[in-house]
Amino acid sequence: MSMIHPVILCGGSGTRLWPRSRKTLPKPFLPLVGEQTLFEATLARCADPEIFAAPIVVTGAAHLPHVEAQSTAFPGTSIIVEPEAKNTAPAIALAAARLPEDAVMLVCPSDHYIADIAAFRAAAQAAAALAADDNMVAFGITPTAPETGFGYIKRGDALGAGFAVERFVEKPDLDRAIEFLADGSYSWNGGIFAFRAGALLAELAAHRPDMAATVARAVERGSQNGQQFHPDAAAFGAIEGDSIDYAVMENTSRAAMVPVAMGWSDIGNWNALRDAREADAAGNTVHGPAELVDCSGVLVESDGPRVSAIGLTDVAIVVDGEEVLVTSMLGTQKVGKLGGASNQ
Amino acid sequence: MSMIHPVILCGGSGTRLWPRSRKTLPKPFLPLVGEQTLFEATLARCADPEIFAAPIVVTGAAHLPHVEAQSTAFPGTSIIVEPEAKNTAPAIALAAARLPEDAVMLVCPSDHYIADIAAFRAAAQAAAALAADDNMVAFGITPTAPETGFGYIKRGDALGAGFAVERFVEKPDLDRAIEFLADGSYSWNGGIFAFRAGALLAELAAHRPDMAATVARAVERGSQNGQQFHPDAAAFGAIEGDSIDYAVMENTSRAAMVPVAMGWSDIGNWNALRDAREADAAGNTVHGPAELVDCSGVLVESDGPRVSAIGLTDVAIVVDGEEVLVTSMLGTQKVGKLGGASNQ
Repeated sequence: MSMIHPVILCGGSGTRLWPRSRKTLPKPFLPLVGEQTLFEATLARCADPEIFAAPIVVTGAAHLPHVEAQSTAFPGTSIIVEPEAKNTAPAIALAAARLPEDAVMLVCPSDHYIADIAAFRAAAQAAAALAADDNMVAFGITPTAPETGFGYIKRGDALGAGFAVERFVEKPDLDRAIEFLADGSYSWNGGIFAFRAGALLAELAAHRPDMAATVARAVERGSQNGQQFHPDAAAFGAIEGDSIDYAVMENTSRAAMVPVAMGWSDIGNWNALRDAREADAAGNTVHGPAELVDCSGVLVESDGPRVSAIGLTDVAIVVDGEEVLVTSMLGTQKVGKLGGASNQ
Repeated sequence: MSMIHPVILCGGSGTRLWPRSRKTLPKPFLPLVGEQTLFEATLARCADPEIFAAPIVVTGAAHLPHVEAQSTAFPGTSIIVEPEAKNTAPAIALAAARLPEDAVMLVCPSDHYIADIAAFRAAAQAAAALAADDNMVAFGITPTAPETGFGYIKRGDALGAGFAVERFVEKPDLDRAIEFLADGSYSWNGGIFAFRAGALLAELAAHRPDMAATVARAVERGSQNGQQFHPDAAAFGAIEGDSIDYAVMENTSRAAMVPVAMGWSDIGNWNALRDAREADAAGNTVHGPAELVDCSGVLVESDGPRVSAIGLTDVAIVVDGEEVLVTSMLGTQKVGKLGGASNQ
């Protein structure tokens, strides 16, 4: 089988893990779980030369210094520098247009955590096989809880090593999420996709012809600078942004999925981060100097000051520069709406 | 009636309100409630020239700079500088020995909060009248909750504007504290006392003759320096320290009390401080930059960094220098035992 081309999307505004994650240093570039940053871990997952070609990173100018600094251990990495953020469909199309038609690409967000790398790689190969036959393939992550924060994929008939997609489902309410979990035929849509480059561009041309044409023009008029490719800013700026889900996956007749259970988390808030980290016997997880007394389920993250905590259950305490966040785990969903997070 | 001589005791190690209160800057010298520090508020309460003579402050060398800096608005203040801390009985005896025999002294801790100054002054006058007749008079603070952290005073027969003391009771367990509250004849011992100076020294000589003699010697060999009096260190160092409660109040046959309800708090922990402060409609009280979402009963105290809090009930968040404390209100009693508080 031919090599899989990892396409790593590096954007993000840095509000949900504020104040540790900031606009200028968002989630992918922080060592939130283990020693590596999430971006470094994403590169490392795709660094098996038996399976993967060198990665393409798609990012904006603001994050370019972090991308360059954190990809030095992966020498073949090329970078597409988006003139502005236009959501995932144009970013993916840029990478597709830079690859040979028959290259199979694996689109990976750079800010997710995956515990089981072997399961990820096996699913990548299964997805790549389906993609080579011109299917538009999504990873369908086996749900472990009735999450209301993710879109779901309902699988249909078996197809190769996976399934056809019966339909994509928007974020459900809790009752429906509970049904989905019980049903067993629904998976989370984690934003990981496999496409043959030419097939993706053909589908995009069918469903979003303006976007496809404009991306083609931005690439044609773009410029190469060492490992970096800069699409033409004027052309790219004219694109109406959209997600790959809306632009392609929900319109194509060739949507497929591969089911995978790989200890996945989007680290979408402090609660998710606590759950992804290794905890002590009381369920506490501490980064930085801290003393915990009568605490359970407490996450501490401090960039310097000592945190002393007494008598707390399921609370996150985050100290970063001149900001201190203290939130119940239930409250972590509201972090992005805090004044500090939204007025960075 | 002759003037009352305020004797203000300024000690304290600064562990229970750590990290705001430190060994080098303990509770009396912090503006914890309102604009004034607790020490300044204590001086101000006793600053009515119709009732009070100029105050005597008894403190240690470590706190002398704070005492001097915060008493400039009270020009007649004299200071007794204790060579070392020997608990309350020797401190009070020092002041008594420096006053005329017939002076009535009112002993006031410097780290309590009192909301109702008029009630305090009325009780001071009632206590002074009893003290002029050689009674050893304690303020009996009308209890508002079954507190287990205070000693109690059970009142006996009516005596002048107050009552004889039937007995002093050590800190009770919760069941007894509930009984005391229901009984109605028990008051909190808040450490505020009135004595005729000569009578106090006579009682001390009767019950602690060594201490009385040693204090007399330390004063005799002491030295005056402007507004400051320095007892002889060698003599004072030989004293076996004790509280005025153990040395005098529990031994004398002339213990009396005046009941008083004056919005008193010893600000003994962060929970007590929250209760003493004015709160918003949700019961939150904030010093410093903060944003609170879905919080109730939350105290925030920050010396600079912004505190953002979500979804918390009855929690104290204190940011001071390189220390961040987050504790449930129930946990506030354990603050003094934290590593940070005990290894200052």
